[in-house]
Amino acid sequence: MGQPNLLIHINYEMKRRNVDAIVVLGDTTLGNPDLTYVVGGSLARGGIYLKRVNEQPLLLTSLLDARNARRLGRVKNVHTLTDYGYERLTIEHGRIDAYPRLIFKVLKQLGVGGKVVLAGRNDLAWGVNLSDRLRTLGIDVTGDPSPTILENARATKSGEELREIRRVGNKTANLVESILDELRSAKHKRGHLLIRRERATVGAVKRIISTHLAHEDLTAPEGTIFATGASSADPHNSGIPSAEIKEGKLIVFDIFPQSESGYWFDLTRSFVIGRANKRARCLFETVQEAQTESLDVLREGLPAQSAMSKACDIIEKHSFRTVRDIYSGKAQKISSGFIHSLGHGVGLTIGEEPYLSLQSLSPLRSGNVVTVEPGVYLPRIGGVRIEDTVQITANGYENLAKVRKEFELT
Amino acid sequence: MGQPNLLIHINYEMKRRNVDAIVVLGDTTLGNPDLTYVVGGSLARGGIYLKRVNEQPLLLTSLLDARNARRLGRVKNVHTLTDYGYERLTIEHGRIDAYPRLIFKVLKQLGVGGKVVLAGRNDLAWGVNLSDRLRTLGIDVTGDPSPTILENARATKSGEELREIRRVGNKTANLVESILDELRSAKHKRGHLLIRRERATVGAVKRIISTHLAHEDLTAPEGTIFATGASSADPHNSGIPSAEIKEGKLIVFDIFPQSESGYWFDLTRSFVIGRANKRARCLFETVQEAQTESLDVLREGLPAQSAMSKACDIIEKHSFRTVRDIYSGKAQKISSGFIHSLGHGVGLTIGEEPYLSLQSLSPLRSGNVVTVEPGVYLPRIGGVRIEDTVQITANGYENLAKVRKEFELT
Repeated sequence: MGQPNLLIHINYEMKRRNVDAIVVLGDTTLGNPDLTYVVGGSLARGGIYLKRVNEQPLLLTSLLDARNARRLGRVKNVHTLTDYGYERLTIEHGRIDAYPRLIFKVLKQLGVGGKVVLAGRNDLAWGVNLSDRLRTLGIDVTGDPSPTILENARATKSGEELREIRRVGNKTANLVESILDELRSAKHKRGHLLIRRERATVGAVKRIISTHLAHEDLTAPEGTIFATGASSADPHNSGIPSAEIKEGKLIVFDIFPQSESGYWFDLTRSFVIGRANKRARCLFETVQEAQTESLDVLREGLPAQSAMSKACDIIEKHSFRTVRDIYSGKAQKISSGFIHSLGHGVGLTIGEEPYLSLQSLSPLRSGNVVTVEPGVYLPRIGGVRIEDTVQITANGYENLAKVRKEFELT
Repeated sequence: MGQPNLLIHINYEMKRRNVDAIVVLGDTTLGNPDLTYVVGGSLARGGIYLKRVNEQPLLLTSLLDARNARRLGRVKNVHTLTDYGYERLTIEHGRIDAYPRLIFKVLKQLGVGGKVVLAGRNDLAWGVNLSDRLRTLGIDVTGDPSPTILENARATKSGEELREIRRVGNKTANLVESILDELRSAKHKRGHLLIRRERATVGAVKRIISTHLAHEDLTAPEGTIFATGASSADPHNSGIPSAEIKEGKLIVFDIFPQSESGYWFDLTRSFVIGRANKRARCLFETVQEAQTESLDVLREGLPAQSAMSKACDIIEKHSFRTVRDIYSGKAQKISSGFIHSLGHGVGLTIGEEPYLSLQSLSPLRSGNVVTVEPGVYLPRIGGVRIEDTVQITANGYENLAKVRKEFELT
């Protein structure tokens, strides 16, 4: 996946920070997006990736993973821990010291003399010890506050990454369309809605969603939001399993699955089964307009906050509050209206750079993948959120998975 | 889940290391077992848990998570970041410095003057920066190499944790029994096995497994191993989707699901459909004997390595090699026989303390939950592994999920 592209981004971020070498590590790639990114996929026992500025990287893995690491192909120069005498270091220096000694040895062989950044998601208690031991050995370990070298590098997707995200997007779109079809064809019986002959509860719909996810080879490690009625007014309420789905009630269906490759997708539709009342329709139309207008301003070079400002403009025009009231000092906190940011990056995590928030001054770049998800919420009544995941291009954006935006399922 | 029990373990480990305070943190509990453990469940935006030695802990969360954190009930003293003036610190010191300033402020209020350990799975680049900034402010941050305070505390499960692991175990056992029943009733047609009218490939069986996982409300974030024939000889081969399942071929089915609570389970069965040849049966009987005998020695106080030694004794008695050959210097590496360790702890991770390996000298404790999974592998032929997850007790062990150990499915 875009070997040169990726190295150019990492190298650029290293130079900006005057960093001589970056060491990305972990005992598995699972839950470690930085390590997954630099090695190009998943390695059961993880590894140690070392890259000096302006040079090709080196990857050390367990004996078990070396062949797999070579097959992933992201790093040309793969060696095993054993090649670098890890077992001998364990005997000489003990289990705890062997690991820093190994990294020290490789950094010295690479001729590293300047600042070194350690990266990858790891236990901090262990990591601070590692950093201190390397410093004792004379390595100039330095911290790298967020957005880190790799957070910035990961924000711009390669062609291969975009294809994978689009693939996950297509699967997600299929799934959402199937669920909408099932809901549209729900049967009425004695005042209840039935799906697959079962009473239509949030729990029942979620079980159907789970089965679809399994069939699409997707997982949802952070769950799925299917919130009805008043609970749809809380953007973090994932839905009450026992809640019954009723005609005319607002539903927020927000799905964020991950594929085996580690890439995520994010898509939200809001709708009612049957007919909606005027207030619900007003929410929907406001949010839809805010989404369309904020999508329309997206393009390479746009300051990320401008898209958020555009969404706030539209929502305020229709007399709802937005988080802008907090930043302008008009309010200390807001509990209704547009109470979150417009969007966030999507890739090997479900929330990453760039963020489409009022504080994001940095310009969007071609190859960024972001969600555009305005929402308006009325406590105790309900909420509407519409979300697509799009790719930023030189002249605009491209929607990575198209799903109808139908408000009334009839 | 066992609030006093957990605090006693953490406090004991802190005292042993002369640590004055531990700070467990992260921006989500997902993929952060230490944070999940101390807060007692999942918090969308994570939090900062601070505990001084001999004192009750304090938990700071986002406004969004505070109510949820109180409902989890593990920490009595829950506050929001806002209560401690986080937003004000952001305005005064900037986004990057606000977080260390906040932790500094709370540590000072708690009267912390001694060593402080930072914990929780986080980006190391960010974490080293945090640690350095706290040190600049005068906090004596110290590393804690593995096994860390929390790795040791987590190794002994509370009654509530054991109930949850047993619940996940029961679901796993149901799933495995259903799959074995489907395989047993596979139909023959023109030299092929059919399951649900589809040709019985590894891919087809895995789709059925996925559907069962979804129905049991389980996920398998690290996948499932269903390896047939020669690929079963590689303990880390998860199975080739296109491979057809044939009668008489060895199958290793290793499943390690996680529940929404974050707890895992681990179970392996090895078998053939129909009749096995003599060599396959010999592998199975050797592994079964090794498992029974090593289970039989388990009890509180046993050095963890003794169970592994017992398994090696049995497997060597039947003329297969074991990893003991490497430690004794008889061999540099082994490629056949018992090529891994006997087991590992299971809890909020799928590989944790205690490890049943030749290097593990520490005694088992009542409340440890470990896998017991001897295996024998013959490259290019196949392998057999049998695994149960058990709880260590004062006088022995208790199997947390019983599933038949049937070799020939007929």
